[in-house]
Amino acid sequence: MARIGIFDSGVGGLTVVNAVMQRLPEQSIVYLGDTARVPYGSKSAQTVRRYADNAARFLLDRGVDLLLFACNTASAYAIEALERTCPVPVLGAVEPGARAAVRATRTGSIGVIGTLGTIRSGAYVRAIHAKDASLRVALHACPLLVPLVEEGWLEGEVPLLVARRYLDALHAQAPELDVLVLGCTHYPLLRPLLLEVARERWGRDVMLVDSAAAMAEETEVLLERLGPEKRTTLPATFTCAVTDDARIDEIGARFLGRSLGPIERVDL
Amino acid sequence: MARIGIFDSGVGGLTVVNAVMQRLPEQSIVYLGDTARVPYGSKSAQTVRRYADNAARFLLDRGVDLLLFACNTASAYAIEALERTCPVPVLGAVEPGARAAVRATRTGSIGVIGTLGTIRSGAYVRAIHAKDASLRVALHACPLLVPLVEEGWLEGEVPLLVARRYLDALHAQAPELDVLVLGCTHYPLLRPLLLEVARERWGRDVMLVDSAAAMAEETEVLLERLGPEKRTTLPATFTCAVTDDARIDEIGARFLGRSLGPIERVDL
Repeated sequence: MARIGIFDSGVGGLTVVNAVMQRLPEQSIVYLGDTARVPYGSKSAQTVRRYADNAARFLLDRGVDLLLFACNTASAYAIEALERTCPVPVLGAVEPGARAAVRATRTGSIGVIGTLGTIRSGAYVRAIHAKDASLRVALHACPLLVPLVEEGWLEGEVPLLVARRYLDALHAQAPELDVLVLGCTHYPLLRPLLLEVARERWGRDVMLVDSAAAMAEETEVLLERLGPEKRTTLPATFTCAVTDDARIDEIGARFLGRSLGPIERVDL
Repeated sequence: MARIGIFDSGVGGLTVVNAVMQRLPEQSIVYLGDTARVPYGSKSAQTVRRYADNAARFLLDRGVDLLLFACNTASAYAIEALERTCPVPVLGAVEPGARAAVRATRTGSIGVIGTLGTIRSGAYVRAIHAKDASLRVALHACPLLVPLVEEGWLEGEVPLLVARRYLDALHAQAPELDVLVLGCTHYPLLRPLLLEVARERWGRDVMLVDSAAAMAEETEVLLERLGPEKRTTLPATFTCAVTDDARIDEIGARFLGRSLGPIERVDL
């Protein structure tokens, strides 16, 4: 029986849970959200790595066969070290998103938006250039997008102005850009708005790459490598553990697209 | 020799450090910012209380004679329990702010804005009603104001629209309001904007109460009660400890109004 461990700094990773459930409905999932220490995006590499280690240990203790890091910041800072030490396969958010962007671009110019940590880490640039060093990568940190999503302000004047300000900065760097990586689990909830502003700025459709779908796709490949006996579990279960349970039902449902069911509060 | 311990969930409490330094320049200060777990405002009472206990223990180990909780959320959830167990006098942010508001109102209608935690705790209502049960208190949580300040967007269209939306909600509840408590250490940096929007909404000047100044005033009184041998220390020192040091120099200076000097990274 295979169990997929999915870790995020908070509730945003439930978009990855949703994508994995859609694609692999027969698999069991253990979700861990470090909601007592969220957000990671503005914190240092050292702190994020420590938290990522705590999370990996927790999920391994729960017997997962695969470990998914939904959090882009944790992936950006911690996944390389974790890949070397973790006894099960590990998949971060950066690699699948970068791969999808490289496949999609026609102009050779890719944009990435994310938290301060994700952008400063340089992880997306490294991942994209490892596949094709001739591609141009423009980066911009967008710290206000996560709080806007958590406040539930997904449309209207305020998010529109904020998105314009951030994408203007990206447009100034990369007028040829045709693919924009949403390098944070929260951003897909702003997809309609970001599409609209990107169309305004670049004067054409820009493809938005969301790592949740790309991660679900690569998870399927990883499961196949685990061998047939690990590929199905019936009945599939979903366990949701968080380090703090404030507003989890309300915000969690926004990301998962349905009620979360019982929630376990844990300490890391 | 007296030492004042000042605790905050992050860097916002440096506004309290600043106010205490202005009023009591001869006192030594040990500051602790729990930047590795910030923000507290969206987290549960249980988690915030645990963090507040960690912080109090850290500052007591550093030999402080007085403990100031600059963080409104930590004050709202944890100060009552701490007052019963702490071996040194403790001063939270809620009580001084509430006292200043009660003194200032002429219409008997007071507004309070703060984080979700501060508002939900009911601490300001209890503190105000303990002084005068006939006063009317209108509350509104403003989760986007902290990220706006941290992003450095203190003026312009986005913060203006956000402030209007939040203060509209407060105006609908309390058209008679004449005093507004800034129940979060970050909000004083938005003072000019909040004053402007309050004037628009209420059609007259609204008094903004900032707990930093009120806390500095009450600190002086508490120091006097400690006795003369505790009242002065020469040379006065300022120690700044944080649990995560990302962007501390940059954001910290915005709150303190000058460079922070050497910063110690600690674990709680």
